[in-house]
Amino acid sequence: MARSIDLAVIPGDGIGPEVVAEGLKVLSAALPPDVKLATTEYDLGARRWHATGETLPDAELDQLRGHDAILLGAVGDPGVPSGVLERGLLLKLRFAFDHYVNLRPSRLFPNTATPLAGRPDIDFVVVREGTEGPYVGNGGSMRTGTPAEVATEVSLNTAYGVERVVRDAFERAAARPAKKLTLVHKNNVLVHAGHLWSRTVERVGAEYPGVATDYLHVDAATIFLVTQPERFDVIVTDNLFGDILTDLAAAVTGGIGLAASGNINPTGAFPSMFEPVHGSAPDIAGTGKADPTATVLSAALLLRHLGHEAAAEKIEDAVTADLAERDGAPRTTSAIGDALAS
Amino acid sequence: MARSIDLAVIPGDGIGPEVVAEGLKVLSAALPPDVKLATTEYDLGARRWHATGETLPDAELDQLRGHDAILLGAVGDPGVPSGVLERGLLLKLRFAFDHYVNLRPSRLFPNTATPLAGRPDIDFVVVREGTEGPYVGNGGSMRTGTPAEVATEVSLNTAYGVERVVRDAFERAAARPAKKLTLVHKNNVLVHAGHLWSRTVERVGAEYPGVATDYLHVDAATIFLVTQPERFDVIVTDNLFGDILTDLAAAVTGGIGLAASGNINPTGAFPSMFEPVHGSAPDIAGTGKADPTATVLSAALLLRHLGHEAAAEKIEDAVTADLAERDGAPRTTSAIGDALAS
Ligand SMILES: CC(C)[C@H](C(=O)O)[C@@H](O)C(=O)O
Ligand SMILES: CC(C)[C@H](C(=O)O)[C@@H](O)C(=O)O
Repeated sequence: MARSIDLAVIPGDGIGPEVVAEGLKVLSAALPPDVKLATTEYDLGARRWHATGETLPDAELDQLRGHDAILLGAVGDPGVPSGVLERGLLLKLRFAFDHYVNLRPSRLFPNTATPLAGRPDIDFVVVREGTEGPYVGNGGSMRTGTPAEVATEVSLNTAYGVERVVRDAFERAAARPAKKLTLVHKNNVLVHAGHLWSRTVERVGAEYPGVATDYLHVDAATIFLVTQPERFDVIVTDNLFGDILTDLAAAVTGGIGLAASGNINPTGAFPSMFEPVHGSAPDIAGTGKADPTATVLSAALLLRHLGHEAAAEKIEDAVTADLAERDGAPRTTSAIGDALAS
Repeated sequence: MARSIDLAVIPGDGIGPEVVAEGLKVLSAALPPDVKLATTEYDLGARRWHATGETLPDAELDQLRGHDAILLGAVGDPGVPSGVLERGLLLKLRFAFDHYVNLRPSRLFPNTATPLAGRPDIDFVVVREGTEGPYVGNGGSMRTGTPAEVATEVSLNTAYGVERVVRDAFERAAARPAKKLTLVHKNNVLVHAGHLWSRTVERVGAEYPGVATDYLHVDAATIFLVTQPERFDVIVTDNLFGDILTDLAAAVTGGIGLAASGNINPTGAFPSMFEPVHGSAPDIAGTGKADPTATVLSAALLLRHLGHEAAAEKIEDAVTADLAERDGAPRTTSAIGDALAS
């Protein structure tokens, strides 16, 4: 547990700067007084791209590498073509810093809205692989724009990449009360990638006799997420399936206003990055309507990753208490942040 | 509208034969008396594979080609390795008979259970591409089973394949009251395939000025399917995303016990195949607990495809009426079939 934190902050666009401000407010309030927090802001995202055409220059990538961790708000606006910031900034960071564990906890907090009838008891975590699968950018197109166009996307999967994230998921499952790991894939159709995942879970699972494992096809998993979400404890899955499942999981646990995520390199070789799952929501930017809770919970994941477990729990308890007290009356972004910080 | 129907029937495994029997019962009852129905059963599926090791021999594929349409129950049992029947039978049929429109209507019928609070008004149809994308079987692995294994899955997408299914979806949207088409993809990450889809929808859409179009990333689409399913009218999407979305859609509209599907070759060059979305459910096979409604609704899609619109509507009305009358008391598979047939 370091006595100082050197944090890179990427506020980004839209509501990004607003929610990040509250995230930092709560993060500093939760830290023990003797831990020094230093922050460096990076101007990256849609604004920067419109101004300079740059997404993530090498010099800034190098600077980011020197920090202990990164807190990101949200990037993007409707004026940036789809894919530019995703591939040029967000995914570039995940790949450059080898964020192979994309951690997304899902919990139905008290007193929050869920579209599900009967308010099931939801508390699971998705361990999404972050550096392989269909996200590797290994695609292309030929005769583009003609009636003879062919476009490909290649999903790359390695034993190296699958095993390390599966191990991480088993560790997390072993540390939880329910001790259950569900692999989600589509191994009846994507047989090569799918069987690599299945074999790996089976083999690594032999080292964790205390953890019960099962398997679901991704299509079936979406069914259980809405009909029986309480069946899940830890889910381990590929990059694309994890993307889909965690948005659905966020929806059933009160919406992406509450969904936190960590892009983690567990080895510590690179800084890990923490961000809310939601986007930049340009339509409500500046109105004070953004809920900073997802960013605050991401800050808690950040603190836990850096070894500040007590501070992380303090934040999560504050969020639980704050949500329990909400009476549906609208509060501003900073009012929520103030409440959580105090 | 043909005066005779030469139908291939693949009852399959588990509850397959039971639900198919009821599907045929209702189908014959709905047909005008002067339409002759001939059926030929094909013994394909897990039973056959266990007995002979065969999934779909060429001779039978050739025979199947000669029918007007195919009705399939469900295939598979836990003793067949994952992928064998999927790739060797189900997907083989879709590819061999060029079933490029995988049609999956989603409707929340009266008096049926939904996991969603508030019973939203759901009535949309997913037009899932059926012959391309990550389903093409273009993958492999090297150094299999070693720590240096690499496994790939290639998503193949062509202007030819995307345009024909997009056109079909626009036709369907234009014929519906809401006249709205939503493209679902992940064009911010799978940029090559995704942009082919986006460009195609834009271009073909210019020919359908009466149809409003929009776009959702697949992750966001899962959110709307549970928070705002009434926003959807026609969804057009790739093979894998369609697989995932239609299971989720089935879950929110009362479960896969009611979800019908058609694997359609709209040109008529090959027989189209109709099947319930659910599997063979070996745990309840033979107990009379299987709900044949999804198969019955698939039979309605089959009749509509062959031009028997009135008979198709008759079946759908019977299902609506039957569901409205259900009081939660369990009924056997054949009791439901009898009720629908009468
Ligand atoms: C913005 C996009 C690249 C990203 C993803 O697909 O991973 C987002 O949807 C997420 O889940 O973090
Ligand atoms: C059984 C499997 C090959 C199939 C698919 O993935 O298409 C099924 O899930 C479906 O949706 O029809």
